[in-house]
Amino acid sequence: MHTIALFDSTLRDGSQGEGISFSVEDKLKVVKALDTLGVAYIEAGNPGSNPKDLEFFRRAEQLTLTHATLVAFGSTRRKKSKAADDPNLKNLVSAKTKVVSIFGKSWGLHVTDVIRTTREENLAMIRDSIQFITESGSEVFFDAEHYFDGYLDDSEYAKATLQAALDGGASTLVLCETRGGLLPSEVARITAETIKAFPGIPIGIHAHDDIGCGVASSIAAVEAGAIQVQGTLLGFGERCGNANLATVAGILGTKLAVDCLCGESLEQLTATSRQVAEIANVRITGGTPFIGKSAFAHKGGMHIDGVQKIPRSFEHIDPAQVGNERRLLMSEVAGRALMLKRIARVVPDLDKDDPVTVSLMDELKQLEAEGYQFEGAESSFDLVIRRHLKMYKPYFSLVHYQTIGSSPYADPLSDATHAAVVKVKVGGESAITAAEGEGPVNALDQALRKVLEQFYPTLKRVHLTDYKVRVLDSAGATASKVRVLIESTDGNETWTTIGVSRDIIEASWFALSDSIEYKLIAEGIEPSVE
Amino acid sequence: MHTIALFDSTLRDGSQGEGISFSVEDKLKVVKALDTLGVAYIEAGNPGSNPKDLEFFRRAEQLTLTHATLVAFGSTRRKKSKAADDPNLKNLVSAKTKVVSIFGKSWGLHVTDVIRTTREENLAMIRDSIQFITESGSEVFFDAEHYFDGYLDDSEYAKATLQAALDGGASTLVLCETRGGLLPSEVARITAETIKAFPGIPIGIHAHDDIGCGVASSIAAVEAGAIQVQGTLLGFGERCGNANLATVAGILGTKLAVDCLCGESLEQLTATSRQVAEIANVRITGGTPFIGKSAFAHKGGMHIDGVQKIPRSFEHIDPAQVGNERRLLMSEVAGRALMLKRIARVVPDLDKDDPVTVSLMDELKQLEAEGYQFEGAESSFDLVIRRHLKMYKPYFSLVHYQTIGSSPYADPLSDATHAAVVKVKVGGESAITAAEGEGPVNALDQALRKVLEQFYPTLKRVHLTDYKVRVLDSAGATASKVRVLIESTDGNETWTTIGVSRDIIEASWFALSDSIEYKLIAEGIEPSVE
Repeated sequence: MHTIALFDSTLRDGSQGEGISFSVEDKLKVVKALDTLGVAYIEAGNPGSNPKDLEFFRRAEQLTLTHATLVAFGSTRRKKSKAADDPNLKNLVSAKTKVVSIFGKSWGLHVTDVIRTTREENLAMIRDSIQFITESGSEVFFDAEHYFDGYLDDSEYAKATLQAALDGGASTLVLCETRGGLLPSEVARITAETIKAFPGIPIGIHAHDDIGCGVASSIAAVEAGAIQVQGTLLGFGERCGNANLATVAGILGTKLAVDCLCGESLEQLTATSRQVAEIANVRITGGTPFIGKSAFAHKGGMHIDGVQKIPRSFEHIDPAQVGNERRLLMSEVAGRALMLKRIARVVPDLDKDDPVTVSLMDELKQLEAEGYQFEGAESSFDLVIRRHLKMYKPYFSLVHYQTIGSSPYADPLSDATHAAVVKVKVGGESAITAAEGEGPVNALDQALRKVLEQFYPTLKRVHLTDYKVRVLDSAGATASKVRVLIESTDGNETWTTIGVSRDIIEASWFALSDSIEYKLIAEGIEPSVE
Repeated sequence: MHTIALFDSTLRDGSQGEGISFSVEDKLKVVKALDTLGVAYIEAGNPGSNPKDLEFFRRAEQLTLTHATLVAFGSTRRKKSKAADDPNLKNLVSAKTKVVSIFGKSWGLHVTDVIRTTREENLAMIRDSIQFITESGSEVFFDAEHYFDGYLDDSEYAKATLQAALDGGASTLVLCETRGGLLPSEVARITAETIKAFPGIPIGIHAHDDIGCGVASSIAAVEAGAIQVQGTLLGFGERCGNANLATVAGILGTKLAVDCLCGESLEQLTATSRQVAEIANVRITGGTPFIGKSAFAHKGGMHIDGVQKIPRSFEHIDPAQVGNERRLLMSEVAGRALMLKRIARVVPDLDKDDPVTVSLMDELKQLEAEGYQFEGAESSFDLVIRRHLKMYKPYFSLVHYQTIGSSPYADPLSDATHAAVVKVKVGGESAITAAEGEGPVNALDQALRKVLEQFYPTLKRVHLTDYKVRVLDSAGATASKVRVLIESTDGNETWTTIGVSRDIIEASWFALSDSIEYKLIAEGIEPSVE
């Protein structure tokens, strides 16, 4: 089977997308996910220009990866200096990755007008820098930035930059369509001509999506002979983003029968993509190819009729091939298979024909119909199952809460605008307290944790890290249903819980109390008997 | 200049996208917007299968359009019947559009296994149905559904379906890549072969985005000789959607120097797309090519440096060509040009160097920095300008409001969970009332309108139609800033207002009171003097 290496730059080029940022913890999680998926190379940062990235690479040395090789990314040396004296290159070496990506300029315009040096010096910068890195023991991929625009401007000079990289010892030449404005037909032609000019040298493609053709250009380059595809799993990146690697993987695996996941199955594609989206706190658009929630959703009556008679009548592949599922929107038939898989994560030995399983599935479907969505709220999902299977005793019960907000607020010296009163019962004892906050949910959150900390001191370490609200059926206006997602952490682990209600306070209450119960279960704390 | 006709199916194929639905009012608005943009054909519905669509076409007869021709869409007649007796075809004729799209099957699998008839009967269905419509006086475009899959299966039969359409009198043959799973290179090859087989016949392309190549396949077909491109302005449609026509228009206009907007300028592309997104209540992803908010946003330091020295160093086109703007994310330099354009809509004669303009711009920039986003909230934008320019007298002032929520709620027989008390002053008089609601915002909304209706009876006709909440900086968790967007209507017009605060109640209050003030100004009602 023909193979193509995927090179994921979610953590480097991807983090140049608007609204995208990763902590060091996030980065480690993304690396693990991409490695499990079967990505060959993970470009994880620019240690030369970013101290946070340098810290990441120090910590990443401890990671045990199955498939992926970590790659550090950096620029060629500065003009008129020595590679050995260049602080960025020295930091790159200190990241100690097996592979280093060095980018250099392949378009004369950038050489003379942006970095403002001579064309000859630019060639020397590429050659010297790569030589310095290869001598340190790392393999170097050369990212020929603006290669395609440079080629159209002056193909001989563009190729000279590739030759300089080879002279420096680069193993692979990556042709970058940096501005993302070229038609796939042009990308195909220039890639083919370049491969012809450098026979036997591995060629990669790095495309952007500024005209919506990042994936098509990548595939066109593969058809022309490229053997490495760079991109980002969800298409994050500068401006319109990079080529979406989930889409590229789907096409390579299902259309071109190419192995691009180091032998791993494509079936993990949807779950891994959604996991990375959660880490990045980004929503995957429903219509995203292969992995989106709507990618195999059928709405038109004739489509539903056709797909029920013969799936391939309206589906280009079986959604299970990429770990996704068919959804029939008009008939509201839910996918049982995916739900069963999810239940098995919590209770591995539950038989799928057991009446308890059936009634649990009914409850979950009912909750999803009401607007619950457990994709991003595994912890609440876990609690639903535990409650249903009586694997769960409550840690506290609510007697009542009350939130009071006013404008102007009673205390003009406080940032708060709301107060909340919470009364709970814990093991026969009851307790009441109050707290203030900016907005009713903030006040309720403060009060609930304050009243419970005296019974469960471990909660002192818990705090919220994310709070999301989505209005579900906006036609109902201010009486619409809202879905609240809350992410909590104790400093080590994070977990996400969900609540749905027409009342945003009640929805938040559900998510807040789930968060606390999940934590107490996870710690193995015994609930006080009521 | 070479021309290509754009054929927009937002209102037909687009409404088959998950979560997309249009009222008749919405449809009329979308038609006006697309016509102004310069779209040649607007496929607006299926009057044969959908009574709401038939009503739309009756009302659409009153529209005066500059460029666009309205198109009704429908199926071929049923098997073993006469076209003249087919109720769907009769409804199609009664829609009285100049052009009708008739779709028929070009893939044997669908003929024998989905609609379950003979290959010969399918050809007769295509021919008869088109003949029936052309004899009624309308021009017919034939949508050859599954043409590409059919061609790969049996190219002779696929072409026979096209010939049947021509025999029936079709003017244009539209090749549909219905499942969206083919590589652009295959689409190009089959389109070229088909054009060769039907010399002189106008050929169109209709592609879907299931492998992220809807646009690339459309462009590949144009390169092969297609002269009509079907799609939807924002890419809405079944599963992963249709080819995004905004992207297609951007490519045709800026890369291939083709006129696809009936002579209109591409500069309207961004504004029109955002307008249609507002009508559909859909958010345009930042990275959407040409029209997205991030499409020309630069974040990486070297990118910002480059683009400031020479814009084309990192931009494939000047964003102004498509009515978008450059944004430099790191340096937080806002785009003044776009803001000036927006101010001119409210106060056309304001000089851009006037100190008042400068201070107004500063205020608007400050508000945007705080999280206000006026793209979808023109009415609040209007109010900010009026207040700044003292073109505005308040209709009421808040003395105080209070919201009280509890669980369990005081009245167990009510759906309400909250009560709100609002006290206002209007023209020296003050008034106080209370109302209940599901959640604090709903209660506040009810109470505010109740207390003001006695002074301004016109508000009795006002009600909310949409309520959206977005958390802006989720790191702050429950004390995060939220942005509330409220859409109101009086039955005729709708308007949208915005509020931003850390307190969701306060943010909602800002949006609610803006909504009321905007309505009173729009009605020309004099505020009572305080």
